[in-house]
Amino acid sequence: MRMAITYEHIKTCKQSGARLGRVHTPHGSFDTPAFMPVGTQATVKTMSPEEVKEMGAGIILSNTYHLFLRPGHETIRKAGGLHKFMNWDRAILTDSGGFQVFSLSENRKISEEGVEFRSHLNGDKLFLSPEKAMEIQNALGSDIMMAFDECPPYPATYEYVKASTERTSRWAERCLASHARKDDQGLFAIVQGGAFEDLRKQSAADLTSMDFPGYAIGGLSVGEPKHVMYEVLDYTTPLLPQHKPRYLMGVGSPDALIEGSIRGIDMFDCVLPTRIARNGTCMTSGGRLVIRNQKYAEDFGPLDPECSCYTCRNYSRAYIRHLIKADETFGIRLTTYHNLHFLQELMKNVRQAIQEDRLLDFRDEFFARYGLNDNDKGF
Amino acid sequence: MRMAITYEHIKTCKQSGARLGRVHTPHGSFDTPAFMPVGTQATVKTMSPEEVKEMGAGIILSNTYHLFLRPGHETIRKAGGLHKFMNWDRAILTDSGGFQVFSLSENRKISEEGVEFRSHLNGDKLFLSPEKAMEIQNALGSDIMMAFDECPPYPATYEYVKASTERTSRWAERCLASHARKDDQGLFAIVQGGAFEDLRKQSAADLTSMDFPGYAIGGLSVGEPKHVMYEVLDYTTPLLPQHKPRYLMGVGSPDALIEGSIRGIDMFDCVLPTRIARNGTCMTSGGRLVIRNQKYAEDFGPLDPECSCYTCRNYSRAYIRHLIKADETFGIRLTTYHNLHFLQELMKNVRQAIQEDRLLDFRDEFFARYGLNDNDKGF
Repeated sequence: MRMAITYEHIKTCKQSGARLGRVHTPHGSFDTPAFMPVGTQATVKTMSPEEVKEMGAGIILSNTYHLFLRPGHETIRKAGGLHKFMNWDRAILTDSGGFQVFSLSENRKISEEGVEFRSHLNGDKLFLSPEKAMEIQNALGSDIMMAFDECPPYPATYEYVKASTERTSRWAERCLASHARKDDQGLFAIVQGGAFEDLRKQSAADLTSMDFPGYAIGGLSVGEPKHVMYEVLDYTTPLLPQHKPRYLMGVGSPDALIEGSIRGIDMFDCVLPTRIARNGTCMTSGGRLVIRNQKYAEDFGPLDPECSCYTCRNYSRAYIRHLIKADETFGIRLTTYHNLHFLQELMKNVRQAIQEDRLLDFRDEFFARYGLNDNDKGF
Repeated sequence: MRMAITYEHIKTCKQSGARLGRVHTPHGSFDTPAFMPVGTQATVKTMSPEEVKEMGAGIILSNTYHLFLRPGHETIRKAGGLHKFMNWDRAILTDSGGFQVFSLSENRKISEEGVEFRSHLNGDKLFLSPEKAMEIQNALGSDIMMAFDECPPYPATYEYVKASTERTSRWAERCLASHARKDDQGLFAIVQGGAFEDLRKQSAADLTSMDFPGYAIGGLSVGEPKHVMYEVLDYTTPLLPQHKPRYLMGVGSPDALIEGSIRGIDMFDCVLPTRIARNGTCMTSGGRLVIRNQKYAEDFGPLDPECSCYTCRNYSRAYIRHLIKADETFGIRLTTYHNLHFLQELMKNVRQAIQEDRLLDFRDEFFARYGLNDNDKGF
């Protein structure tokens, strides 16, 4: 059987152990480590597909839960799939809906069969199961599909996480069994287990025995301290197959992208860059910049003097501040473009540092530089 | 003295009397009759300057009142002027602020000196006068400035309109006297007079005696029936100089753009195409199309099958409907782009029809076609 998704390993950073690679999909290849912009509702908020391409993204993420609710996966199937529906011809990864069922919906009831919940839009009673999540994602036609899982909250008791993780493994098996388009779409499993090393090990063992084309690490970036996340990665990533892509879900702060890459992660996604952009907060080479601040009112320099993006080439801080304060959409376009471009450039630099066997040095330089900035206390 | 704005007459339509021409400005030339997209707060809502250029606009309008309030004209002066501030290198027309003072602000007090009013943003007490309107527009550096006028409501008494129109003429004289950048910026006067023929004549006589580089017809499209507007144009336009541009303020419905062109108007502006786009209403060759309607939920054809714009080339009605219903900015970008493109194409067709001496035929065909459409009752 042809594999829809394959991972080409290019080299390992001698200094850090990070992996340089390339993921091949039915809609083109992308270099890893990679950050995937999030297009929740079949659009990367405020951006055109051309703009997302222009900044170098080879893959975006879209959300099964949202598209299931609106416009409905059958509509997207009839449109010829999500790529055609949204005019994006590069790769798409869809999540399974599991995370949103637990974070957005109300009155959910979990059973072995699946999860009953109420729509956050209109209160309709709905049901998602491993089989349903596959049916929806098969209709969407994403290149990479995610297995239906439960993402336990942090903190949670050992007993809760154990039962949940075991069920996630059983659900993964059902996903694999009901996935109807294995030639076109690669299904990734999600390693859970919270911050419990033995549960992570068990989860990884269960899932790697089933031979998925890729593996995600889920249940992180859900409120735990960053050092806990890094510890979990330290003992979980080595359990995943070398010849398949590894995806750390929901992570997009510059520091965590670098630390995750150092720990052998290939793919990341997060709403962070687009969400903070809509409030006028920008990621820059000098750290976080809050464009609404009065001090930028007559600052006619670019957002980030070291950035070469469309926003920084053409517009001043004063203009962007004016637009954001006046609630003008174009302001949000400019900050969103910049933030997404910033992360694409960051990942390009991470890949370059791996190529040069100096990712730890790169991290230290990046962090030191950020520390010198008095603009804000974190990315 | 060099004239900042000149009008080149190319030909008059033998069938309708409409004018084909070209207006030359310090930031390039544009063909007339022309529709000017509105960029109230130094941005054409949701659009990038590149997109506005791509659809063929050679001039946009921006609002003195809004920019005076926020970010302040001194900020824009320091930025190097409005063109540089907003990254638009083609022509800009700024209105005088008069219309907004009367339509948006509160507690206004009119005196011979000017108008005292309260900001609609924060209630601050502010004052605009002919001299202040010139100072602001000189700071903005627009190619075409507008004289400070009062736009009387419709209906209004003869006495009210007479006093107001006479004051507008006196104000025009003060504008001309205080305009400090005549080499770079052309100041247009605004003919007022409501729906009273003798007042329009008096206004036109007063203002044309002062030799402005262009003339606008104001006080229309403020609630009067369209036939009243056309009657006013019928007797007012012939009073304006042949060798200078004529601008009908606040008009942007397709029918009125054609009727205005027939009556010898060269320039138009209106928020209509961008405002209705934000609600998902589109101008199409089949008439007005409300994309939120359920019947478009699985319509995978373009907004307008006869349109070649970015939106219609790449996206379906079903997708645009999804985006608008999901409150996604990109949906509004797509409808805005389409509507503005629709009007640019309409004006191109109007110019072509003038070239071919068939603008009355063009109007009849356009109206008949619209009448055949059962989608809606008007543009």
